[in-house]
Amino acid sequence: MTFIDMLQGAAAQNDSMLCVGLDPEPDRFPAAMRGDARKIYDFCAAIVDATADLACAFKPQIAYFAAHRAEDQLERLMAHMRATAPHVPVVLDAKRGDIGSTAGQYAREAFERYGADAVTLSPFMGFDSIEPYLAYHGKGAFLLCRTSNPGGDDLQNQRLASVDGQPLLYEHIARLAQGPWNTNGQLGLVVGATYPAEIERVRTLAPTLPLLIPGVGAQGGDAAATVRAGRRDGGPILVNSSRAILYAASGEEFAGAARAAALATRDTLNAARA
Amino acid sequence: MTFIDMLQGAAAQNDSMLCVGLDPEPDRFPAAMRGDARKIYDFCAAIVDATADLACAFKPQIAYFAAHRAEDQLERLMAHMRATAPHVPVVLDAKRGDIGSTAGQYAREAFERYGADAVTLSPFMGFDSIEPYLAYHGKGAFLLCRTSNPGGDDLQNQRLASVDGQPLLYEHIARLAQGPWNTNGQLGLVVGATYPAEIERVRTLAPTLPLLIPGVGAQGGDAAATVRAGRRDGGPILVNSSRAILYAASGEEFAGAARAAALATRDTLNAARA
Repeated sequence: MTFIDMLQGAAAQNDSMLCVGLDPEPDRFPAAMRGDARKIYDFCAAIVDATADLACAFKPQIAYFAAHRAEDQLERLMAHMRATAPHVPVVLDAKRGDIGSTAGQYAREAFERYGADAVTLSPFMGFDSIEPYLAYHGKGAFLLCRTSNPGGDDLQNQRLASVDGQPLLYEHIARLAQGPWNTNGQLGLVVGATYPAEIERVRTLAPTLPLLIPGVGAQGGDAAATVRAGRRDGGPILVNSSRAILYAASGEEFAGAARAAALATRDTLNAARA
Repeated sequence: MTFIDMLQGAAAQNDSMLCVGLDPEPDRFPAAMRGDARKIYDFCAAIVDATADLACAFKPQIAYFAAHRAEDQLERLMAHMRATAPHVPVVLDAKRGDIGSTAGQYAREAFERYGADAVTLSPFMGFDSIEPYLAYHGKGAFLLCRTSNPGGDDLQNQRLASVDGQPLLYEHIARLAQGPWNTNGQLGLVVGATYPAEIERVRTLAPTLPLLIPGVGAQGGDAAATVRAGRRDGGPILVNSSRAILYAASGEEFAGAARAAALATRDTLNAARA
């Protein structure tokens, strides 16, 4: 069972393009847990239980665990997701990027220690910094391509004089990921929801890659425009929402509110399918 | 006491441009520890004790700890370095790169949890992915610029059509780091030792930034050429060696052999000063 197989299975079973991002911030937890980093697992597990039939993937962001010395809670959460929602793949959002030998250690962390099905990576150091992850056959790797943050322009949107056709840097990455770098069909791309025209451009250059699209929800991306720009038959999208689901309500009803927010987002995304 | 102050102090006190990289691989430990990830702290602490009067900085690479669930050992090692060699700054090599809110969590991990004096970062997501680290006044941040791995060319060496003077991508980063991004004097650059001409180019564009230069030693960079290309009065360099020091000998004499290797490298670097 490869990552792509799992993704397609979960997307079909849950009729969903929604990726639920797990960015736990203890200061935003409901009152009974607020500020208590020892409750990261409990909080996230409740979100997982409330949304497991609505998501095509879960995406824990490792910084939110590491900042609180909560790697053990992330391990327990990974095990919980596997037990509760074995059909839903887990993307470990880590944006690692390093030389071969070190990349091998990071791959071991993501795939062996945490048992992730896919990981997010930075392409800045080139193909040999990606290759060690691809040695884990069947696992997925999403490369940063065009990010939705204000500084995403600073490098990604620069035009390259030295590449055929003078693509923008992010366009060059999309081509590499669809073509020569995708040696075993394991690559996807991260494209922010802020600019639908750029999602469409990436989709043109990378017609079959799964696109992980953050920026809908709290970051303000338009869900329907995102689906129209990015989704194709044979070209799946994972539209991530984190804060708008996790912190949909601040009281004891947080899990129910998270479920309602996830359901509404899933349905909004589905309604935008042609 | 800022990172730059610490660096200058250690470089003067230890008469050193050598950064000792801590990339613990249990399979390469001496026989009595071999293969035992619980000995990561003991191994690294012995290296620190053997080289604390020879280094201008220590650089633990976090992947080598995280792959073995050894964050607790990294915490102990950080405390040990602070106690044993309080004058030697510690660069946490993590190459993080993420949007603002997540970057804030990674900064908390590096500076609050581990107490690092500086961190390595990827500039791929732009300035707002760097800014949260600069909120820790006095801490340092080394941005990836021109890396020494084979794939370093793939993106970093592309020429930009859309920037004045059509610099290569790595030249553009060097200018940003020396200029508009260096809002509080906290930035440095990572430049591989493999290509001295490119170190010299970066030094021309970034005359005062500290340059962290890996690739001497096991990776084959020329130490003397590196110093001539990168070191200037008011423009310090940290020349990193990891494996050639850590694994200088495979028996019980490993710490003494590491000291001898560090001493020889330090002296080779110093001899290359004009």
